[in-house]
Amino acid sequence: MATEPWSLRSYLQQRSELIETALNDYLPVVESSPSRLHEAMRYSVFAGGKRLRPILLLAACEAVGGDAAKALPAACSLEMVHCYSLVHDDLPAMDDDDLRRGQPTNHRVFGEATAILAGDALLTEAFALLSSATTCAKIAPAPCCEVVQILARSIGSTGMVGGQVVDMESEERAIDLATLEFIHTRKTGALIRAAVEMGAVIGEATDEQRQALCRYAEAAGLAFQVADDILDIVADQAELGKSIGSDQDRGKATFPSLIGLGQARRRAAELKQQALTEIAALDDSARALREIATYIVDRSN
Amino acid sequence: MATEPWSLRSYLQQRSELIETALNDYLPVVESSPSRLHEAMRYSVFAGGKRLRPILLLAACEAVGGDAAKALPAACSLEMVHCYSLVHDDLPAMDDDDLRRGQPTNHRVFGEATAILAGDALLTEAFALLSSATTCAKIAPAPCCEVVQILARSIGSTGMVGGQVVDMESEERAIDLATLEFIHTRKTGALIRAAVEMGAVIGEATDEQRQALCRYAEAAGLAFQVADDILDIVADQAELGKSIGSDQDRGKATFPSLIGLGQARRRAAELKQQALTEIAALDDSARALREIATYIVDRSN
Repeated sequence: MATEPWSLRSYLQQRSELIETALNDYLPVVESSPSRLHEAMRYSVFAGGKRLRPILLLAACEAVGGDAAKALPAACSLEMVHCYSLVHDDLPAMDDDDLRRGQPTNHRVFGEATAILAGDALLTEAFALLSSATTCAKIAPAPCCEVVQILARSIGSTGMVGGQVVDMESEERAIDLATLEFIHTRKTGALIRAAVEMGAVIGEATDEQRQALCRYAEAAGLAFQVADDILDIVADQAELGKSIGSDQDRGKATFPSLIGLGQARRRAAELKQQALTEIAALDDSARALREIATYIVDRSN
Repeated sequence: MATEPWSLRSYLQQRSELIETALNDYLPVVESSPSRLHEAMRYSVFAGGKRLRPILLLAACEAVGGDAAKALPAACSLEMVHCYSLVHDDLPAMDDDDLRRGQPTNHRVFGEATAILAGDALLTEAFALLSSATTCAKIAPAPCCEVVQILARSIGSTGMVGGQVVDMESEERAIDLATLEFIHTRKTGALIRAAVEMGAVIGEATDEQRQALCRYAEAAGLAFQVADDILDIVADQAELGKSIGSDQDRGKATFPSLIGLGQARRRAAELKQQALTEIAALDDSARALREIATYIVDRSN
């Protein structure tokens, strides 16, 4: 039987379908009580995300010869965490956004109280799912505890949530490049790094492989944010589903606003190159990781 | 050396001091960035809670002959979860409370955004601490995964958070006793049950002991809520630190409002007796659990 030539497009599509199906299986059904809460949780999880983080987790697992099927619950738990963070970030008390990916934000549809609780429940469900991987994915207890630990440490007060706090504190205030990188390393970078490290642990990576993959993730994660800032300026509203330059409207610093568009593009290209160099020792199983790092940056060109 | 006679008062005091010290050790210091977030987290954790849930966890561990020291991280993680739930419940979009235990609520001091994020960070920190018990408390990975699973399942959309949703939906609406018990079983009961079950797992309880302890916790947890409703009516403002009958003011159903004060007192006494019966087979190591169930109900007399 002839095999289709490998393409990132079909890889991403196949992977996101796998994750979509699994998320649907893992999330509580709307019919179960409390219905409205479950509806709110599903609304934001199935709002058209690209599933980049769970795909990275599966790809990291495969990059070290692991079985992606064993990593599927962990991948879905990570996406639940990502969705919880978006629901809470959009709240009136935070970024006060009405639209997310072109659709009304969770609190605009379900009200503020339900949105807060739907976020809380998604975060909680992520840990419930992850800790059940010993039974539902036959992961040994020791690596299971380890991935719970990696996830929790990445998204707490010194990780993702801490990044959001510093981000809010920096609004309407002149910040420098170091502070901007501090914010992004935590607010978006920490979860991307967790994705790759969790995949490495489930794939039973050697210490050396695991460290290389973490460095890959740090570079790719920051590249993702620089590229996002560039896109925020150049993409049109239809493509992004939010107002053009909306971060700049709120007085938020971005890489292009601090160092200029050209310099931001060069920085993104350098980070991509660094990500690729970090995992140069891995064999062709790391192909998806390589192509993703390239795609992250090139989509902003 | 003469030993002091056992008293619940000194037991609770000694245990709450132990938990206080451990919480202080486990929580991020205010000096670490982001300071204001860490300050907000600590503000609500050290706001004068009685530490009932972590004490129950330690007591359940000891009741089956386990070492309470091994259960200390789990006990603290549970208290962090309890505090996160209070911070989020008090938010303007939820119960909109200005006072908690006689002090301004988290969002009144730190603002709504920081309060939401402090809650998120406390929930996350709970899982970080719990999953680190393999190293910091030398718990084997399998029971460690199990307690993460118990905690997460108890506080998600079909547990504590679900209870809060149904509670909010029931405001200003006539509800019956079954619905009130449904709410309390989840909103407060689930975490108390989790406390006892986690303690049982860490104490290496037999299946039979574990099930008996869970039934004890269900009865004691509901007794606690009935007693709280009674106290809400009879205690004076200074003692409780919130307005007299504040739940009734908001139109919330309580046990006394549905079945009358006398009947509520009888129900609390029955539940206490049931809790004691469930653990009758345990030896004197379960003394603290017995005295706590008695204390929970008798404080409302």
